[in-house]
Amino acid sequence: MSEQIDEPIGVAVVGAGYWGPNLVRNFQASQAFRLLWLCDLDLGRAQRALGPYSTVQPTTDLATVLADPRVRAVAIATPAGTHLQVALAALRAGKHVLVEKPLAATHRDGLTLVEEAERRGLVLMCDHTYCYTPAVMRIRDLVRSGDLGEVQYVDSVRINLGLVQRDIDVVWDLAPHDLSILDFVLPEEIRPDAVAAHGADPIGAGRSCVAYLTLRLPGGGMAHVHVNWLSPVKVRTTMIGGSKRTLVWDDLNSSQRISVYDRGVDVAYPDELGAEERRDLLVSYRSGDMIAPALVEREALGSMVEEFAGSITTGRTPLTDGRSGLRVLEILEAASRSLAEGGALIPVGVSR
Amino acid sequence: MSEQIDEPIGVAVVGAGYWGPNLVRNFQASQAFRLLWLCDLDLGRAQRALGPYSTVQPTTDLATVLADPRVRAVAIATPAGTHLQVALAALRAGKHVLVEKPLAATHRDGLTLVEEAERRGLVLMCDHTYCYTPAVMRIRDLVRSGDLGEVQYVDSVRINLGLVQRDIDVVWDLAPHDLSILDFVLPEEIRPDAVAAHGADPIGAGRSCVAYLTLRLPGGGMAHVHVNWLSPVKVRTTMIGGSKRTLVWDDLNSSQRISVYDRGVDVAYPDELGAEERRDLLVSYRSGDMIAPALVEREALGSMVEEFAGSITTGRTPLTDGRSGLRVLEILEAASRSLAEGGALIPVGVSR
Amino acid sequence: MSEQIDEPIGVAVVGAGYWGPNLVRNFQASQAFRLLWLCDLDLGRAQRALGPYSTVQPTTDLATVLADPRVRAVAIATPAGTHLQVALAALRAGKHVLVEKPLAATHRDGLTLVEEAERRGLVLMCDHTYCYTPAVMRIRDLVRSGDLGEVQYVDSVRINLGLVQRDIDVVWDLAPHDLSILDFVLPEEIRPDAVAAHGADPIGAGRSCVAYLTLRLPGGGMAHVHVNWLSPVKVRTTMIGGSKRTLVWDDLNSSQRISVYDRGVDVAYPDELGAEERRDLLVSYRSGDMIAPALVEREALGSMVEEFAGSITTGRTPLTDGRSGLRVLEILEAASRSLAEGGALIPVGVSR
Amino acid sequence: MSEQIDEPIGVAVVGAGYWGPNLVRNFQASQAFRLLWLCDLDLGRAQRALGPYSTVQPTTDLATVLADPRVRAVAIATPAGTHLQVALAALRAGKHVLVEKPLAATHRDGLTLVEEAERRGLVLMCDHTYCYTPAVMRIRDLVRSGDLGEVQYVDSVRINLGLVQRDIDVVWDLAPHDLSILDFVLPEEIRPDAVAAHGADPIGAGRSCVAYLTLRLPGGGMAHVHVNWLSPVKVRTTMIGGSKRTLVWDDLNSSQRISVYDRGVDVAYPDELGAEERRDLLVSYRSGDMIAPALVEREALGSMVEEFAGSITTGRTPLTDGRSGLRVLEILEAASRSLAEGGALIPVGVSR
Repeated sequence: MSEQIDEPIGVAVVGAGYWGPNLVRNFQASQAFRLLWLCDLDLGRAQRALGPYSTVQPTTDLATVLADPRVRAVAIATPAGTHLQVALAALRAGKHVLVEKPLAATHRDGLTLVEEAERRGLVLMCDHTYCYTPAVMRIRDLVRSGDLGEVQYVDSVRINLGLVQRDIDVVWDLAPHDLSILDFVLPEEIRPDAVAAHGADPIGAGRSCVAYLTLRLPGGGMAHVHVNWLSPVKVRTTMIGGSKRTLVWDDLNSSQRISVYDRGVDVAYPDELGAEERRDLLVSYRSGDMIAPALVEREALGSMVEEFAGSITTGRTPLTDGRSGLRVLEILEAASRSLAEGGALIPVGVSR
Repeated sequence: MSEQIDEPIGVAVVGAGYWGPNLVRNFQASQAFRLLWLCDLDLGRAQRALGPYSTVQPTTDLATVLADPRVRAVAIATPAGTHLQVALAALRAGKHVLVEKPLAATHRDGLTLVEEAERRGLVLMCDHTYCYTPAVMRIRDLVRSGDLGEVQYVDSVRINLGLVQRDIDVVWDLAPHDLSILDFVLPEEIRPDAVAAHGADPIGAGRSCVAYLTLRLPGGGMAHVHVNWLSPVKVRTTMIGGSKRTLVWDDLNSSQRISVYDRGVDVAYPDELGAEERRDLLVSYRSGDMIAPALVEREALGSMVEEFAGSITTGRTPLTDGRSGLRVLEILEAASRSLAEGGALIPVGVSR
Repeated sequence: MSEQIDEPIGVAVVGAGYWGPNLVRNFQASQAFRLLWLCDLDLGRAQRALGPYSTVQPTTDLATVLADPRVRAVAIATPAGTHLQVALAALRAGKHVLVEKPLAATHRDGLTLVEEAERRGLVLMCDHTYCYTPAVMRIRDLVRSGDLGEVQYVDSVRINLGLVQRDIDVVWDLAPHDLSILDFVLPEEIRPDAVAAHGADPIGAGRSCVAYLTLRLPGGGMAHVHVNWLSPVKVRTTMIGGSKRTLVWDDLNSSQRISVYDRGVDVAYPDELGAEERRDLLVSYRSGDMIAPALVEREALGSMVEEFAGSITTGRTPLTDGRSGLRVLEILEAASRSLAEGGALIPVGVSR
Repeated sequence: MSEQIDEPIGVAVVGAGYWGPNLVRNFQASQAFRLLWLCDLDLGRAQRALGPYSTVQPTTDLATVLADPRVRAVAIATPAGTHLQVALAALRAGKHVLVEKPLAATHRDGLTLVEEAERRGLVLMCDHTYCYTPAVMRIRDLVRSGDLGEVQYVDSVRINLGLVQRDIDVVWDLAPHDLSILDFVLPEEIRPDAVAAHGADPIGAGRSCVAYLTLRLPGGGMAHVHVNWLSPVKVRTTMIGGSKRTLVWDDLNSSQRISVYDRGVDVAYPDELGAEERRDLLVSYRSGDMIAPALVEREALGSMVEEFAGSITTGRTPLTDGRSGLRVLEILEAASRSLAEGGALIPVGVSR
């Protein structure tokens, strides 16, 4: 048994564009994997990504890669529009699959992939990289352990001077990060059940460059996401307000990424009072210390790659499986619909 | 004439609660005014606000104050629900009036005040204090001079652990600051023409404690305001994105309140191309220097008090006149309606 | 007895220049005091400091003030060179005395005052304002309770664009703050026992405008103070490294003034080893959480004034008594000597 | 000629410890070089540094490397104590040499290397990496172009929780960065001419863990360096005060590394006055804008490697040549002497 584990998993990366080289680097650094191929329609691009010193083989031919019996896993970093086709081919060739976010171009395509993988008993994992940062792992612990109490609101800001994409708007480009993090840290029972989206295209790019998503959480809470391609300053901050404590995650503050405040508003509802008097609620304010937990710096992609390996060798569901990718897609599609309908509130997760 | 100017203006402050003492202090510090009365229903509170060393006279009787011929101006810092009554009495007694924000409890009440003041040729000024900070004065200059180019988006955040009010929600409590600043700095032609509001009351306070306003600006721009009573950290940041430059105002960074970035996205539309090709817009990115203009620190209330004096002595319209207070009220009422209607977009300023 | 306590202490402020008005404001706000006089050689300045609404009496005649039997305490905010004369007169008139820092122009003068006060059983207190900030009070607790372990090093930076003084250098102008804080928070047994000073006058002002003090602490520790009039940015940071924890005080970060890090270097010395092997010390690194204790914001001068009142009514020694002022003077004089001798290490506290 | 330039320079890296892998990565990324060998006494370490996918050859045998005629350049990242021997062997084998900082263990050893390289007409370059950051390159321009005016003072802080070294103190470990930067940006005529050093070893490590260097600059200026292994927070800030402007470099603020302040103190000396009156100098204060110049992010090691290539192919002196390494060594040795002599001021650069 242990030998099976010790044997590195043969893996191929498909796509040598923006993200592929990061996957290449992390698979090379992992003892759990043996990177065999880098596949791209543009051979020169694959070669440049590998550099002149690598023994990894570049290729333009996906079929060859999928036919290689040493290849047990495929990581896909091609444009979202091609995810369905490439991932489906890989799954049908019996390979475990890691897919760059978003899982697919549409929820329907994503569902096809999830069902195919489930049918075949293969791992289908979505590379929601941020979920594997030490900060988000810790946030998940803090939220799920109840340290924050009940989650009351979430406010997430992800803005910077970003590449204006030609095929997708800022919601589809940036919000998948926030939505996948939300999906990762929030308990299942308070996952968003409706979304309203407002966007603007003040530069005439043909699609929203600035957008705000308001997500309704079951139980009266609210999550809000601000994404923006036009901001000259980079901000990556998420606040999670809980009934006991409130957490602020500032991803750009490397010396203090997470701050947990024992500070907030408490409301007491005297039991003995009638409905009338209950309006005079008793509000009190806590003003306690702040704790910034120590985090061990580790590259998120490295942890993500280990999670992929762990899922393959043990057969367990990865932390960010295809279904999490599907939930993100569902919200993105609802947000697009809301944008088209002038900010109307669109339900999500009805079928869950 | 000059003697008329030199003679200090007799003034009375009505309301010795949270804000009144600040007005007292600033009227006392101003050479343009002679503070004569501090009026409050609670005499002890008025006395405590004045302290044991003051020669200013405390009183509970507004009629006495208004009957005092030395009193030419009245500053009102009572709860919003009483503004109509107190201000109307003062105007009818021929006094110039300064009113704490919001101008009145409703747009209709505010309009009554504005019309009364205009009929009598008296100054009616709204104490939109933030507009008189050196930062906002400079921002107004930068926006109106065209230095930023056309305003594309505004994002304003005003959050901290705030007093949960018993009669108004967080929108009415905090957003007047942002809305009055917007009214102050934006050119008239791009004042908001519609608003959508989303709020949450996760602590069961009976009113929104967290809220987001999305304001549509004529010409394709958008303004967004985030107000929150529950945040353990205080944030006071406004970003104004322009076609030429983008400004960030961080009111808590006393050493660098304003940063102007020559950084952004430019889109060119080649003239010779057909409609089809024009979709391939040419996007380019500017990455220039940032300039933080020097600001002279000055207490906003001091400048506000001088503006009140200047309006009285010269007869000119104050920078933050009753009409600006009205416009703020109109947006607040529309926001309340939007909140009640689940975030629907509500038009404003139709009648302007 | 309780009546004696309840009766406000009659107090006079001498000096209406830069600092005097702050004392005036705080004595007026204190229920423990009744401010009777503001004395200054320039009557107009005293009148302007009081403003047109005050019932406090301005005067130019110190003798009148000292002859007033209602005056039990005198607060002196005149130039340092006059402290000896004014304070001595006040003490000889039987008044309790509060003196602006530094206690006197020289250690010898200061000693005269201390001895006079002790002989007469009067309070002589030095207005080391910073010691009364909530932050420094908390730091004192943290250091003295042993929470930080043994103090290993202190690094203090106090720089900004400051007024180039005509009669004193930057060491005498700014370092008294740092030295009085050190005196306040450090346990007696590790008070500095030697100082070396380096300074520069790069603008030709005739005295040091930038200076560094290195203070030797008994037991192998070191404290270091950086003072600078020429810095365009304001920095007010003190780090106190302890064997258990390290504290960082950033006085300009109002939302997180104190941060206590459970992070550092531990060295173990295996007992069983010979001297030779002991060189191979065992170094280990702690990397724990950071805690930012909640501080209640309170104006330091208000607490200082209460301490003065408490010392007068109970007869106890104030936290910052004349002797603490003396110790600061001794280090300042040694620093001046070191500057004159090219940075030589000058002993202090020999006679303690 | 152009062919000679186009042909990549064969290079070997010696030392696969902490820094070597960074050199390996950057030589691999450079088109100007062809990395042929990675040499380390520990073959496994060399293999691990290369990883399982590299075609670069690991070896333990320096002689083989030096005998390889394809190798034209050698980069040395071994402990400082071995620099003399390894670099001398490489130079004698006719190879151009890049040496990790410090150039050598002693000034005398460094001089031997410099003279050997000059005799043979070979490049000897010191890897003062920080000098090749975009920030320091820009600072050099700003200082040397006169934009800051005359340099009046420099204050440099480089502190964090660092590895307590077993063979060198914190001065030799960290100060070479600051000293090489100073050497790089300051005009030749104001290079430090004396140094005083104060250190402490509060943890009993057997060598200074906290230290302060005061450097005298010809013309009345001063530079100061604070290095510290024990600080729980990381600070990397350098302030350069000039007669016209003052620059602050905060290397950890990736969004605003350099800030140039048009703020400071001006002193005027009226010509017509006698010596006596001239003491009444006219001090004025400038309070202008701050500019944060845009910097293109680029990895310093990449630029350093290009500089090495440029020096080899064109024969010009590299920006950080052996002589700059020598000047740094001279100050380090003087600092050690000052530490041993209780902070005495030790002259440097006498022989220049």
